Amino acid sequence: MHNFPQHLLDGHASFMSGRYVRERERIRELSEIGQSPSTLVIACCDSRASPEMIFDAGPGEIFVLRNVANLVPPYQPDGGQHGTSAAIEFAVKALEISNVVVMGHGRCGGIHAALSPEASPLDQGDFIGKWMSLLGALPEQLGHNELMTPAERQTALERISIRNSIRNLRTFPYVADLENQGKLAIHGAWFDISTGELWVMDDKGDFIRPQITLEH
Amino acid sequence: MHNFPQHLLDGHASFMSGRYVRERERIRELSEIGQSPSTLVIACCDSRASPEMIFDAGPGEIFVLRNVANLVPPYQPDGGQHGTSAAIEFAVKALEISNVVVMGHGRCGGIHAALSPEASPLDQGDFIGKWMSLLGALPEQLGHNELMTPAERQTALERISIRNSIRNLRTFPYVADLENQGKLAIHGAWFDISTGELWVMDDKGDFIRPQITLEH
Amino acid sequence: MHNFPQHLLDGHASFMSGRYVRERERIRELSEIGQSPSTLVIACCDSRASPEMIFDAGPGEIFVLRNVANLVPPYQPDGGQHGTSAAIEFAVKALEISNVVVMGHGRCGGIHAALSPEASPLDQGDFIGKWMSLLGALPEQLGHNELMTPAERQTALERISIRNSIRNLRTFPYVADLENQGKLAIHGAWFDISTGELWVMDDKGDFIRPQITLEH
Amino acid sequence: MHNFPQHLLDGHASFMSGRYVRERERIRELSEIGQSPSTLVIACCDSRASPEMIFDAGPGEIFVLRNVANLVPPYQPDGGQHGTSAAIEFAVKALEISNVVVMGHGRCGGIHAALSPEASPLDQGDFIGKWMSLLGALPEQLGHNELMTPAERQTALERISIRNSIRNLRTFPYVADLENQGKLAIHGAWFDISTGELWVMDDKGDFIRPQITLEH
Repeated sequence: MHNFPQHLLDGHASFMSGRYVRERERIRELSEIGQSPSTLVIACCDSRASPEMIFDAGPGEIFVLRNVANLVPPYQPDGGQHGTSAAIEFAVKALEISNVVVMGHGRCGGIHAALSPEASPLDQGDFIGKWMSLLGALPEQLGHNELMTPAERQTALERISIRNSIRNLRTFPYVADLENQGKLAIHGAWFDISTGELWVMDDKGDFIRPQITLEH
Repeated sequence: MHNFPQHLLDGHASFMSGRYVRERERIRELSEIGQSPSTLVIACCDSRASPEMIFDAGPGEIFVLRNVANLVPPYQPDGGQHGTSAAIEFAVKALEISNVVVMGHGRCGGIHAALSPEASPLDQGDFIGKWMSLLGALPEQLGHNELMTPAERQTALERISIRNSIRNLRTFPYVADLENQGKLAIHGAWFDISTGELWVMDDKGDFIRPQITLEH
Repeated sequence: MHNFPQHLLDGHASFMSGRYVRERERIRELSEIGQSPSTLVIACCDSRASPEMIFDAGPGEIFVLRNVANLVPPYQPDGGQHGTSAAIEFAVKALEISNVVVMGHGRCGGIHAALSPEASPLDQGDFIGKWMSLLGALPEQLGHNELMTPAERQTALERISIRNSIRNLRTFPYVADLENQGKLAIHGAWFDISTGELWVMDDKGDFIRPQITLEH
Repeated sequence: MHNFPQHLLDGHASFMSGRYVRERERIRELSEIGQSPSTLVIACCDSRASPEMIFDAGPGEIFVLRNVANLVPPYQPDGGQHGTSAAIEFAVKALEISNVVVMGHGRCGGIHAALSPEASPLDQGDFIGKWMSLLGALPEQLGHNELMTPAERQTALERISIRNSIRNLRTFPYVADLENQGKLAIHGAWFDISTGELWVMDDKGDFIRPQITLEH
């Protein structure tokens, strides 16, 4: 009848006998009254960087957009079918979320492709190259000198790209308006897929590790 | 310095002291050798329908694309910046995944907007309306007669949309080629956000509940 | 008789009644048989980055050279009075140490002066500017574009400078010889003065955080 | 990935779980607001004579320059890269410290080399011999007669060298100016590596043991 991947069926069985049992009330209530997440997380598709894992988030907690390299395009109301912009619009205007988090991560394949277009197996790709062109001239501006190691350059571009996406996010008129009114806060974050650590962006655009308090 | 949402910081502290400790070796190994997920899941941004929750998926297991209403556009190599197509290309060509799952879910806000454009607060939206126009004439074809209740019509369109996305997916030449060669399998699924149940699409396009085996 | 700083006299009294009492035997033995540290640490003068604090090092454990920004000049046997080169020579040839660690740190004032010579109160200085000129064109090569924040550029140059010092260290013929013979290992490290964390340089020149094992 | 010395990793783990935990607030504050040590200590690289140990100094307390035999060269603005002079300039002009301590110690290897150039394994050294030549004719002037034992001659030259360095320090115009204005005090000290005792220089240039008060 179907050849659905067994690892997913097994995982779903585990969900049903575990979390679903424990959180049944909350899940059913969310189904009845609808979702009202306070935060939109814009994250990467990478299998190692699930926002729900990183934030140990429960059902109903975060609205999650995931594309390659967690990019936000600038506001372009040109009649095209912009999936990322649609998700932002839905979160901000329909769900009235209070926070947007643009979350990048280490060893991002999209950023890697942007840094080494000539070496990438994706160079003939129709879509990845175009999609990463949202970074514009940033990879070239970062430079290709030998001062920084490849890993350092990659991390630098991952963070530069987050700041770029946040700039683009502010070109959405309603995002800028709500932020100016103090009703919407925009955040940057970078996840270290190796150590598990989260770095959050401060006022100056730098990424710092917040104090983790375990007593909550 | 930063005003990062406290619920996310708390969740991350919980991750660090819980799952990260338990799965440290696996997480570090994934960081070193790179991801090699076997499955791409195309899901909705909805805060109640996280694929990692539904499939109890661990780090490295699934590559996850999330947009509003889990839509796949047709193959359009027109030079535009198509985020969904870029993620599909990356998963299929760079990561060489073996399965694609298009997973819809109940009470989907995007599908609801497509069904009732006149009633939606999103009707003036620039992006949501355009994005949902990927469904083409399907909402009208479903009809507005009183034969089906609103809930039945919503569930119907959620499943029609999944089959539509799977048709679009097969317009990508490399997707069709790999499927024909038996190297890539395409699946549909629908998640009931109230009961937690997963319905998978069978050969005829119907959605059925697979037998759940709890002993795994 | 003397106006010796009281905070140092107080500190010395604390040493005499504390550590000296506990480690008297070791201290006296070191005095009798002479020092034989296994490691030379080349560190900065910064009051927040004492190697003995960072490594909780006891008497006799590390031979410590400290100058502004922990720089190593290239091998220049020109008859000048090179204090840093003299210390390296003493450690490697007389003490026959097995490890050299070049340790930089965050928010380094010397590196800051090298990055912003025009803004620095040291611009008329006779010696700081000359000393930091050991970095050559590296600050300019790093670039002054706005892609990286000032803090990111500072961290980048701190690490570039460590790699540069290690290159210079290998221009000392006996250092290169001993390293080739496997008798001397050269290491890089970077200390985060805020979090207390140590980052060590790996084979590729990247700085990573080693696993801390507390059971030793 | 790295072969960083284990004794240092162990020491750092000890620091992180000990002192860092106890002094976290102070350390973080120093990182935020910058260092403002009141005292520059010019000390020897010797592994048995760490100023932080001798003065039980905490983070941010002392700015520490360490070279072989704690020498200060005379003011030579000749365009050379003078590391010691750069550190003095940085401490006095940028940090505006109030005290300079030139601290020698017993059984100093550099002083020993200066006293017995013919017996030293360093006599062919390119840098140690040149560096110790900062003492000029002082070793010869001390004489090689049999009146003083070798140990007495060594201690004598250690103290003669401290007074010589202090003379050289006063050839820096801004040092002399600030001292004359009463804004900067210059001190000598000598540490007995065997007994742990500190001897401080009085007005006449003699080294005396200050009264130690233990109740602090």
